[in-house]
Amino acid sequence: MLKIGVIGYGYWGPNIVRNLADIKEAKVQAICDLNPEIVKRLKEKYPYLKITSDYKDIIQSKDIDAVAIITPVSTHFELAKAALEHGKHIFVEKPFTANVKQAQTLINLARKKKLTIMVDHTFIFTGAVRKVKELIDNGTLGDLNYYDSTRVSLGLFQHDVNVIWDLAPHDFSIIDYVIKNKPVALTAQGVDHIGRGKENIAYITMYYDNNLIVHINVNWLSPVKVRTTLIGGQKKMLVWDDLETDEKIKLYDRGVDVKNKEGIYRLMVDYRSGDMWSPRVDHTEALKKELIYFAHCIEKNETPINDGEAGLRVVKMLELADKSLRAGGKLIKL
Amino acid sequence: MLKIGVIGYGYWGPNIVRNLADIKEAKVQAICDLNPEIVKRLKEKYPYLKITSDYKDIIQSKDIDAVAIITPVSTHFELAKAALEHGKHIFVEKPFTANVKQAQTLINLARKKKLTIMVDHTFIFTGAVRKVKELIDNGTLGDLNYYDSTRVSLGLFQHDVNVIWDLAPHDFSIIDYVIKNKPVALTAQGVDHIGRGKENIAYITMYYDNNLIVHINVNWLSPVKVRTTLIGGQKKMLVWDDLETDEKIKLYDRGVDVKNKEGIYRLMVDYRSGDMWSPRVDHTEALKKELIYFAHCIEKNETPINDGEAGLRVVKMLELADKSLRAGGKLIKL
Amino acid sequence: MLKIGVIGYGYWGPNIVRNLADIKEAKVQAICDLNPEIVKRLKEKYPYLKITSDYKDIIQSKDIDAVAIITPVSTHFELAKAALEHGKHIFVEKPFTANVKQAQTLINLARKKKLTIMVDHTFIFTGAVRKVKELIDNGTLGDLNYYDSTRVSLGLFQHDVNVIWDLAPHDFSIIDYVIKNKPVALTAQGVDHIGRGKENIAYITMYYDNNLIVHINVNWLSPVKVRTTLIGGQKKMLVWDDLETDEKIKLYDRGVDVKNKEGIYRLMVDYRSGDMWSPRVDHTEALKKELIYFAHCIEKNETPINDGEAGLRVVKMLELADKSLRAGGKLIKL
Amino acid sequence: MLKIGVIGYGYWGPNIVRNLADIKEAKVQAICDLNPEIVKRLKEKYPYLKITSDYKDIIQSKDIDAVAIITPVSTHFELAKAALEHGKHIFVEKPFTANVKQAQTLINLARKKKLTIMVDHTFIFTGAVRKVKELIDNGTLGDLNYYDSTRVSLGLFQHDVNVIWDLAPHDFSIIDYVIKNKPVALTAQGVDHIGRGKENIAYITMYYDNNLIVHINVNWLSPVKVRTTLIGGQKKMLVWDDLETDEKIKLYDRGVDVKNKEGIYRLMVDYRSGDMWSPRVDHTEALKKELIYFAHCIEKNETPINDGEAGLRVVKMLELADKSLRAGGKLIKL
Repeated sequence: MLKIGVIGYGYWGPNIVRNLADIKEAKVQAICDLNPEIVKRLKEKYPYLKITSDYKDIIQSKDIDAVAIITPVSTHFELAKAALEHGKHIFVEKPFTANVKQAQTLINLARKKKLTIMVDHTFIFTGAVRKVKELIDNGTLGDLNYYDSTRVSLGLFQHDVNVIWDLAPHDFSIIDYVIKNKPVALTAQGVDHIGRGKENIAYITMYYDNNLIVHINVNWLSPVKVRTTLIGGQKKMLVWDDLETDEKIKLYDRGVDVKNKEGIYRLMVDYRSGDMWSPRVDHTEALKKELIYFAHCIEKNETPINDGEAGLRVVKMLELADKSLRAGGKLIKL
Repeated sequence: MLKIGVIGYGYWGPNIVRNLADIKEAKVQAICDLNPEIVKRLKEKYPYLKITSDYKDIIQSKDIDAVAIITPVSTHFELAKAALEHGKHIFVEKPFTANVKQAQTLINLARKKKLTIMVDHTFIFTGAVRKVKELIDNGTLGDLNYYDSTRVSLGLFQHDVNVIWDLAPHDFSIIDYVIKNKPVALTAQGVDHIGRGKENIAYITMYYDNNLIVHINVNWLSPVKVRTTLIGGQKKMLVWDDLETDEKIKLYDRGVDVKNKEGIYRLMVDYRSGDMWSPRVDHTEALKKELIYFAHCIEKNETPINDGEAGLRVVKMLELADKSLRAGGKLIKL
Repeated sequence: MLKIGVIGYGYWGPNIVRNLADIKEAKVQAICDLNPEIVKRLKEKYPYLKITSDYKDIIQSKDIDAVAIITPVSTHFELAKAALEHGKHIFVEKPFTANVKQAQTLINLARKKKLTIMVDHTFIFTGAVRKVKELIDNGTLGDLNYYDSTRVSLGLFQHDVNVIWDLAPHDFSIIDYVIKNKPVALTAQGVDHIGRGKENIAYITMYYDNNLIVHINVNWLSPVKVRTTLIGGQKKMLVWDDLETDEKIKLYDRGVDVKNKEGIYRLMVDYRSGDMWSPRVDHTEALKKELIYFAHCIEKNETPINDGEAGLRVVKMLELADKSLRAGGKLIKL
Repeated sequence: MLKIGVIGYGYWGPNIVRNLADIKEAKVQAICDLNPEIVKRLKEKYPYLKITSDYKDIIQSKDIDAVAIITPVSTHFELAKAALEHGKHIFVEKPFTANVKQAQTLINLARKKKLTIMVDHTFIFTGAVRKVKELIDNGTLGDLNYYDSTRVSLGLFQHDVNVIWDLAPHDFSIIDYVIKNKPVALTAQGVDHIGRGKENIAYITMYYDNNLIVHINVNWLSPVKVRTTLIGGQKKMLVWDDLETDEKIKLYDRGVDVKNKEGIYRLMVDYRSGDMWSPRVDHTEALKKELIYFAHCIEKNETPINDGEAGLRVVKMLELADKSLRAGGKLIKL
């Protein structure tokens, strides 16, 4: 059983701990948080665990096989590096690091030490994303025309990152997982309403070969929560509404068939408007599946799909989006 | 009673004719369409009207006060110019013209001839848009932070224009009506999946002074119809879902109050999450109100809010969006 | 082409006239209404039609083949009887008559005169009801367990009938059409909040052989409009939401399989929870299809599915529901 | 701090334990379950708690102040009686007992022993039900015309009770809480599709003085989950959709004003169709509030609103509903 030390018990850390309590492949051995209030409460709640405010107690412990780093992104690199140097596998909250260089350093270090890096791209373990990937991979959707994600809500303003670094890692990691091709160009628009130099609304557009276009709308200032992705394929189209309880994925037999590109006036496209089908998706909590998979990859010495390289690819997109934003929405070729 | 000749009986023309039949301020005198099938059917259905396939029968008729031009945009200029030259007031389907220059020529001609131009910006006559304007004008929303419109569906591919020219005139005309300030910069992204050089998906971003950002998502290839606009103000936020029957406008007492820009770590913003309120909006058909207003403006010699200048402002934004698209999403300063 | 005289131009009559204008199998020849305002307006709008306030002008006209009776139910019998006696086919708004005896008299008269009676059970011509019938008839749903309809809104209080006679004819006619078996018992509950002796809220329960139960909830005092029917079959279940634009019918692969009736404690039923499927349904306006069918039945001398007998079966259920209500919800065996 | 022993760790027990772990007014001292698997798992998960399969270990423990009885209803009486006899306060899952007589016996025993009974009518501690009560109590809705609840889903078939005893306690306890008057008559319809003599679909109608009608639709065989209650008052109407995340309560300024009961033909009622308003409701988990309140009532020696008498009133309605069902839906006067 994999023994895990958890660093960071803020918003997401408790979910890691709760899920580890439910699985038999791994368990929590220790928890670290800087907040004395949290340390006190954890000691009461988990009298049989090591609770500490010093991350070194976790990283240097011989009782611990792997470290879960669930802290603000600005601290990921130092903590991850120290953990790897002490021979610990690492499970790192998204985004992996604050920049590409850090990610590359950690990947190299882990490779040298033969340690596993998993980046917590939770969404790719959901039943919904698995179903989307399946429907793309098995050709149901046909070649993709577009992928359009809206991820808005009244969100917590993060002090160290903008809305892109907070919300878009979800989209970038999902897109990296379900779309085989990689983007060839990217542009980003956005604005900061608070005046701290961190955008709270942003729009990212990515271009791919074969006319695929990807658009991501992230916003911390929406009065309502929206988590909707439209995916248009040449054969079928799909709507993924992650806020739906039972029918997250709807597949539409709708589209246009281009019959004759030489044709004229509205005759060039035939419309299909057929049935809708909502496949059942697995409801198992994604984080639970991901943590079991983390233990499995370490035990079997397998490379996770969400390894350091996947983390790096996401960080690279975040960097480029920032770069385009700073340059007034300049189109950046990859 | 204003006597109107209608040119064009395709998709929108029948709605003009139906609404004119219901009001006492104006009436249809003649209808023109190029399609012999339509001419035949109209003669059967309206044996007491003049039905013709020659627009000159309309434009030169002494029995006609005003001409409704409900034809493809590429024909607007010639028809409108001829109508004005024959002393007819004109009611022109959106977008007003195919370019800014044409719009300017028509405005000048109408001014010289003392004739009225009304551009069919139907949406600004809906109860929903009127309510949005009211809530902005009376300060309920506070200064605007953003305006984000999604207008997608499985749409008819137009042969002569791209999706921006087809769908975005709605957004541009609404925004021109409800937001007093004018944009200072614009960028557009998009793609053409059919290969005719006409984009079928596009994203437009407009920047304003005071950090207001406007985003428009238009798409002819969506499996589902979405007509949702989020408007974020410093005091309140609003969702306008035009597909809702009864509750098109929802006003949220939600937002963030920035208390102290020097503050740190998540303390800088206070969240409000209060009631939601859905004001009743007028359900009268917008086109009916607009046509009554057309007759009224001519009778009283008033300048319509949706006059040629309003039409020109919309055409200008369409031109600039196209220009940005052609330049790879270049940010265009206004 | 069938020449039709329409009696009654209140709420529903204009729809009859509008649809007749669109089809080539029949046409409006004359319209009668008692309201002088309506007569005046009709004369202006349809200068080429006979407009009258005396129904005898319709019924006795030699130019008319069939009469559409679109008046309050209390007048149906007299008008229908007179029309049949003058050799006219009749199309009668639902419910057919105010009681079973009247219905029987009209059926006998039509049979003697070899004339066609069609009762306007519009819903059975909708794509949605056709699809429901298809899914029941072809065994997709399996044997039915229940049929549960909610039909509520802020409705117009009718002066001459209660909410059952106003709204439940829809349900009774649909059920009569899609369910082969006939009910064996019925009970109704309800209340009158206005004090005129006409219930404005009512609940009807019908029992069938094989444990099928039908429930109908009708209410004129609901703040929101609901038009939802749940249908549970032993193989699959169905939700028909008539307010949905595109996905009116949803078919669920959900249910319980009873494996062993001797079994105990929650082991007796297996749960299925599979995909959902929303078949495309025909969107043609039902009334148009029905009026074409009316002309067809007369021309081909065919008996309509919604003939006088169907109308009578609905009226019988309405009478029984009233009878149960008057007897404090007594269960009435059929 | 109130020390609680929990008997029963099936579906609902874990929620009791989880919420007790989060509050400071009470804590779990011991857990009992008959299932050896569960006992084993609990011992691992809570090594510092007393875990037992013998309820007497709980009831006789001197370390325990109160017992939470979270077992099938058929066992409530024996367990509750034993607990009271050993001087323990009791918190009993709904429905309180299997019949009125048992409830009365427990109430008498608790009174004699000066112990507190709380019946777990969780819903009356939700923000939504509190808001409904507030809007009724402060006169916002006006006198009630109707209360119509639909509570259906694909539910677990209970082995010892029918759907009324499983789901309707929610409705009966809410109605008992929000409506001051008590019903004067009740009727129930239903059917058993599995053949065990336990109905899985039922409809309950209750009549009150002043023309208030209550209707409850409970169904274990629905493909979709519905938790919607319509409440019609003479001033305003309300929709409570418990599946909504943010807007559970919607208040409509809609209704009819009866101006003149002598009036005729549709003139007797005026329609109001105004704004909708969705007040924010408290999102605190109801069970947590209820358990804090349990500890509070014991400490302060206050009688809970959901005491044994409230439990008895609900059980009485369940008994009467069963009695009406057995008698073919007979109307039972209270």
